[in-house]
Amino acid sequence: MAISAFVFVDVIGDHTKSAFKTITRLPGVKNLYSVTGPYDLIVDIEADTLEELDESVLSQIRSVDGVRKTTTSVILKR
Amino acid sequence: MAISAFVFVDVIGDHTKSAFKTITRLPGVKNLYSVTGPYDLIVDIEADTLEELDESVLSQIRSVDGVRKTTTSVILKR
Amino acid sequence: MAISAFVFVDVIGDHTKSAFKTITRLPGVKNLYSVTGPYDLIVDIEADTLEELDESVLSQIRSVDGVRKTTTSVILKR
Amino acid sequence: MAISAFVFVDVIGDHTKSAFKTITRLPGVKNLYSVTGPYDLIVDIEADTLEELDESVLSQIRSVDGVRKTTTSVILKR
Amino acid sequence: MAISAFVFVDVIGDHTKSAFKTITRLPGVKNLYSVTGPYDLIVDIEADTLEELDESVLSQIRSVDGVRKTTTSVILKR
Amino acid sequence: MAISAFVFVDVIGDHTKSAFKTITRLPGVKNLYSVTGPYDLIVDIEADTLEELDESVLSQIRSVDGVRKTTTSVILKR
Amino acid sequence: MAISAFVFVDVIGDHTKSAFKTITRLPGVKNLYSVTGPYDLIVDIEADTLEELDESVLSQIRSVDGVRKTTTSVILKR
Amino acid sequence: MAISAFVFVDVIGDHTKSAFKTITRLPGVKNLYSVTGPYDLIVDIEADTLEELDESVLSQIRSVDGVRKTTTSVILKR
Amino acid sequence: MAISAFVFVDVIGDHTKSAFKTITRLPGVKNLYSVTGPYDLIVDIEADTLEELDESVLSQIRSVDGVRKTTTSVILKR
Amino acid sequence: MAISAFVFVDVIGDHTKSAFKTITRLPGVKNLYSVTGPYDLIVDIEADTLEELDESVLSQIRSVDGVRKTTTSVILKR
Repeated sequence: MAISAFVFVDVIGDHTKSAFKTITRLPGVKNLYSVTGPYDLIVDIEADTLEELDESVLSQIRSVDGVRKTTTSVILKR
Repeated sequence: MAISAFVFVDVIGDHTKSAFKTITRLPGVKNLYSVTGPYDLIVDIEADTLEELDESVLSQIRSVDGVRKTTTSVILKR
Repeated sequence: MAISAFVFVDVIGDHTKSAFKTITRLPGVKNLYSVTGPYDLIVDIEADTLEELDESVLSQIRSVDGVRKTTTSVILKR
Repeated sequence: MAISAFVFVDVIGDHTKSAFKTITRLPGVKNLYSVTGPYDLIVDIEADTLEELDESVLSQIRSVDGVRKTTTSVILKR
Repeated sequence: MAISAFVFVDVIGDHTKSAFKTITRLPGVKNLYSVTGPYDLIVDIEADTLEELDESVLSQIRSVDGVRKTTTSVILKR
Repeated sequence: MAISAFVFVDVIGDHTKSAFKTITRLPGVKNLYSVTGPYDLIVDIEADTLEELDESVLSQIRSVDGVRKTTTSVILKR
Repeated sequence: MAISAFVFVDVIGDHTKSAFKTITRLPGVKNLYSVTGPYDLIVDIEADTLEELDESVLSQIRSVDGVRKTTTSVILKR
Repeated sequence: MAISAFVFVDVIGDHTKSAFKTITRLPGVKNLYSVTGPYDLIVDIEADTLEELDESVLSQIRSVDGVRKTTTSVILKR
Repeated sequence: MAISAFVFVDVIGDHTKSAFKTITRLPGVKNLYSVTGPYDLIVDIEADTLEELDESVLSQIRSVDGVRKTTTSVILKR
Repeated sequence: MAISAFVFVDVIGDHTKSAFKTITRLPGVKNLYSVTGPYDLIVDIEADTLEELDESVLSQIRSVDGVRKTTTSVILKR
C-alpha cells in the first residue's frame, strides 16, 4: 500500500522556475504544481514506505537550491 | 480550459468526519483528502470559470458545518 | 485629492455571499473582489478625507454581519 | 508495519485534566504526556494503516471535550 | 476571459523604490501601489491564462532585486 | 491637512542606538520613541500628502542601516 | 517623572466606534487614534507610576466592550 | 531540588484583575506579575516534582476564570 | 528521578540527513524521529537534572550544523 | 522606585552558552535563566529609570553576539 503526501514548498524569490524544473525530475514525484496563496509549489509525492518517503523523496526536495522551507502533509484517507 | 485549485480546510475538532462526508458530495470536488499537518482536509476542486469556482464550489465548502477557515491555492502550472 | 485604500476582509465561513452583497452597496466602495489566498474579500475604497474613510466606509465594512477581521492598506503612491 | 505519529494537542484551559483521562483510554494511544511549551498534551499513537490512524484514533482525539486544535506529525524514520 | 490577481509584495528595506520602478515596467502589470500596512507593494496583474500569469508575470516579480516574499490572490468575482 | 502615521520599526539587535540617532534627524519625523514590546522603535511621522509620506519619509526610514521590517499605521481620526 | 505608553487595541468589528467614544473619556488617556494597519485603535496613555498605569488605565481599556486584545508598549526614550 | 518555571498567561480583557487576585492565592505561586508586552500576567511557580508542578499548580492556573491560553517555560539553569 | 523532554527541531533544508546522523550519537538522546508536519526532527531526551538537560544535551543539539531553531517541551506527567 | 522588566531572548543555535556567560556580567541584570519553551533565555533586569533601562541594559543585551530577537515585558504590578 503506497504512502502519499503533499509537500508545501516555500521558495526564495527568483529560484521558483529552476526549483520547478529540478523537482519534476525527482523520484517519487507524482505531480508538481506552481500555485498561488501562501506557498509557491505543491508536490504530490508517493513511496512504498514512510522511510523511503523521507530518504529518497523528502530529503531530495529539501536539498533543491532555493528551497527555504517545506511542510509535509500525509494523506490519511481519500 | 478548467480552473483547478486546492482548498486547505481547518475544521472544528469533532466535525471532521461529518465535514468529510458532506464535502465529498459537493459539485466540483475532484478529490478530498483527510491529512496530517497544519490542515485537517485538503480539497482538490475544479470549475470552468473562476466565478463558478467561487459561487458553486468554494462558497459551499465554506458553509459546511464545522468549517472554521479555508485557504485557497489556485494551480497556475503543472 | 481623494484618499484610496484596500481593505482585506476575513469573513466567517458561510457569510461570504451575504457579506459580498452588503458591502457592494456601501458608500465609498469603488470595487469589491471575492479572492483566493489568505483573505476572503478585498475592498477598493475611496473618500475625500481620512476621517471620512474611517467614519463612513471602514466602520460600515467592520459592522457587516460575519466580518471577523479587517486590515486596511492605504495607497501612498501609484 | 505499524504507522506511528505524535499528535500535539491544544486544550481549552480547565479541560486539561479531563482530556488527559479520556485520551489515555482511547484505542491506538501508546503514550500520553502532559507537557510544557507551546502545546498542552502530546499523544504518541499507532495504527496498522493510515486510514485506521485517522478513523479510529485521530478523529476520536479531536472529539474529546475541550480539545481546541490538533496537529499531527507522522514518524518517517527513527 | 483574462485572469486577474493581486500580488502582495514584501520588500527588503532600502529596495522599495528600485523595486517599484522595475515592477512598473513588467508585462502584465495593470497597476502598482506603494502601500501602508503589512505589505510594501500591491501589484494588480492580468494575463490570458493562469500559466501565462505564472510564467511571464509572477516569476518576473519574484526575481526583482530585494523582493523577499510574494503572496498571490486570484480574483474570483467582482 | 497634514497626513500623520505611526511607523513600527523592527531593528537588528545592535543597530538600535545608531538607528535611533539616524531616524531622529530625518525630515517628517515629529517624534521618535524607543519602546518595549513587539517593536524596537515607534516613529510618529507627518507629511502634506501620502506620496510625500512615502517618498521622503517612509523610504528613508526603510533605508536606515539595521532596519529589518517596518509596518505603517495611518492615523484616520483622533 | 510620568510613565508613558502606547496601547495597540484590536476591537471586534462593529464595536470600533463605541470603543473609541468610551476610551476617549478614560483617565490617563492623552491621545486616542483610529488607525489603519494591524490594529484598530492606538491609545497614548500616561500615569505617575507603572502600578497606576496598570490599575487605573490599562485595566479600564481592557474592560471596554468589544476590546478583543491589547498589547502595551512602554516608552523608554524619546 | 525544587522545579521552577515561568507561566505566560493570556487573559480575556476584563478578567485581568480578578485573575490576578485568584492566582496570587494558589499553592506553588512564588511571584505574580502584571506586565506589558505580548502577555498579560507572568507567574513564577515552584514545586518539588514536575508532576506536582502540573497537577497542583499549572492545572489550577489554567482553570482560573478568564484565562485564555498559558505557555510554560521551565527554568533549566540560573 | 530522570527529567524527560521532547525537542522540536527546525533544520535548514539540505542539512536534515547530516543533522539526523549527528544528533543520534549525542549523549542523553533516547530516541530521534524524522517527521512530517511543522518540524523536521523530534528528539526524545533525558537527563538526571534540568541543568544537565541544558548543558550536555540541549546546548549540543542547538550547535549541530544546520539547526535553525529548537523548541523544548518538558514532560510533566505520563 | 526601580523599574523591573523581563527580557525574552531568542539566540542563534550554538551561541546560547556564550550569550549566557556574557549577559550574566552585564549591569542591571538581577537574574538570568536558561529556559525551555518558545525562548532560549529570560533576563530579569532592573534600572532606576526607563531611559537607563534602555540605554545601559537593553541595548547591551541586544548587542550580545548571537542574540537574534529580544521582547521586553515591563513589570507593572507584583
